[in-house]
Amino acid sequence: MENLGKVYLVGAGPGSVDFLTVRAHQLLTQAQVLIHDALVNADVLALVPATCDVRSVGKRGGQPSWSQAAINQLLIELCQQGKTVIRLKSGDPFIFGRTAAEIQALKAANCAFEVIPGLSSATVAPLLASVPLTDPVLGSQFTVLTAHDLELHNWEALAQMAVLVVLMGGKALPAICDRLLRYGKRPETPVAIVRWASQPQQQVWTGTLLNITQQTKAETLSPCIIVIGEVVGLRPYLQP
Amino acid sequence: MENLGKVYLVGAGPGSVDFLTVRAHQLLTQAQVLIHDALVNADVLALVPATCDVRSVGKRGGQPSWSQAAINQLLIELCQQGKTVIRLKSGDPFIFGRTAAEIQALKAANCAFEVIPGLSSATVAPLLASVPLTDPVLGSQFTVLTAHDLELHNWEALAQMAVLVVLMGGKALPAICDRLLRYGKRPETPVAIVRWASQPQQQVWTGTLLNITQQTKAETLSPCIIVIGEVVGLRPYLQP
Repeated sequence: MENLGKVYLVGAGPGSVDFLTVRAHQLLTQAQVLIHDALVNADVLALVPATCDVRSVGKRGGQPSWSQAAINQLLIELCQQGKTVIRLKSGDPFIFGRTAAEIQALKAANCAFEVIPGLSSATVAPLLASVPLTDPVLGSQFTVLTAHDLELHNWEALAQMAVLVVLMGGKALPAICDRLLRYGKRPETPVAIVRWASQPQQQVWTGTLLNITQQTKAETLSPCIIVIGEVVGLRPYLQP
Repeated sequence: MENLGKVYLVGAGPGSVDFLTVRAHQLLTQAQVLIHDALVNADVLALVPATCDVRSVGKRGGQPSWSQAAINQLLIELCQQGKTVIRLKSGDPFIFGRTAAEIQALKAANCAFEVIPGLSSATVAPLLASVPLTDPVLGSQFTVLTAHDLELHNWEALAQMAVLVVLMGGKALPAICDRLLRYGKRPETPVAIVRWASQPQQQVWTGTLLNITQQTKAETLSPCIIVIGEVVGLRPYLQP
């Protein structure tokens, strides 16, 4: 390595400080530079020392968005200055985190790096809504997908899966339900939508594949996780 | 509630203290009673106060195993004695954790409880082996399953999924590969096996659906996570 800088690509989890990992917490409290996405929670950002150089590269609202190339370049420059850089991403860096592009750029520039896992909202949101992702009888496997581009998926095969966890599916909810119904998923299959999981403003809606779209028509669902499967029916039995 | 006891059903993550959540760490350092499974790491158990009543209910080796009913009864009794009980489970409580049975028993007995998520080895093991679970091109969804009973799954549909993460699959590896090949999964599909993820003795093997069984024939694979999919091919480009 050409310098003593290092980039930690760190999962911030779903938002709450409680659900950071011990390692992520430790790295944040010692951070020299923090580069973070838009969805990262203010309480998490507040953990860094007062001297920390904090920069947002998130793509939100009317602000100009950072290109991936510009983010890569920023990480490399800071690392080559000998800095310890925390690159914080919401959820887990290896689940829809686009972390591979940053790692490849860091490797090409001979920068040291380490990836620290985080709790993905794909698993935390169902748990916080009292929905287990698996059950000995009702669900022996689960599939996590994004609704970013529905054409990427084989919906006929997805309809055969016991449990689906859909990220970024708020706006695509009607299309998702239509496709699953078309491929033979039971109309009565229970569905839960969890918005802002782990945050004080967390909300949960439940319904079925047939009626959830109508039931949540008046609501703003994003950012949310959608859980589809018989395991959602366990919720009333598992709520505190 | 009839008493002031409370049971925390806590995910211990993959083993390393670094990958506990902040909340789990805090609960462990204050635990009055700790009830844990066999796979929980000694370093994690060492976090509890010296005065903590620590009991293993794990099913390992030649020891008599605890029935689920006996575990439920123990949790209820301790809670009704007014204790703060940490029920620690490896990974995440809602991913193959059989936590629902304990919650239903606690609810029936009017015991207060709370579920604390943990990092599942299903997501941590691939990350620690430099395998992302998703990729914009190579994998837009992933499916997590156990190999406990292969007949529970629709292998024709599973063969259509971009990425499979198999828990408890060490002994079933040949049968898993056979089924996926039979349903048309490419023989060259890369496979990674991660044993003891996050522990000092972590090991990783890689191969393809066609040759991984032969390549690992002489090895003890359990406890392991098997990742099957094109994303495994990214590993050489993402390793530090």
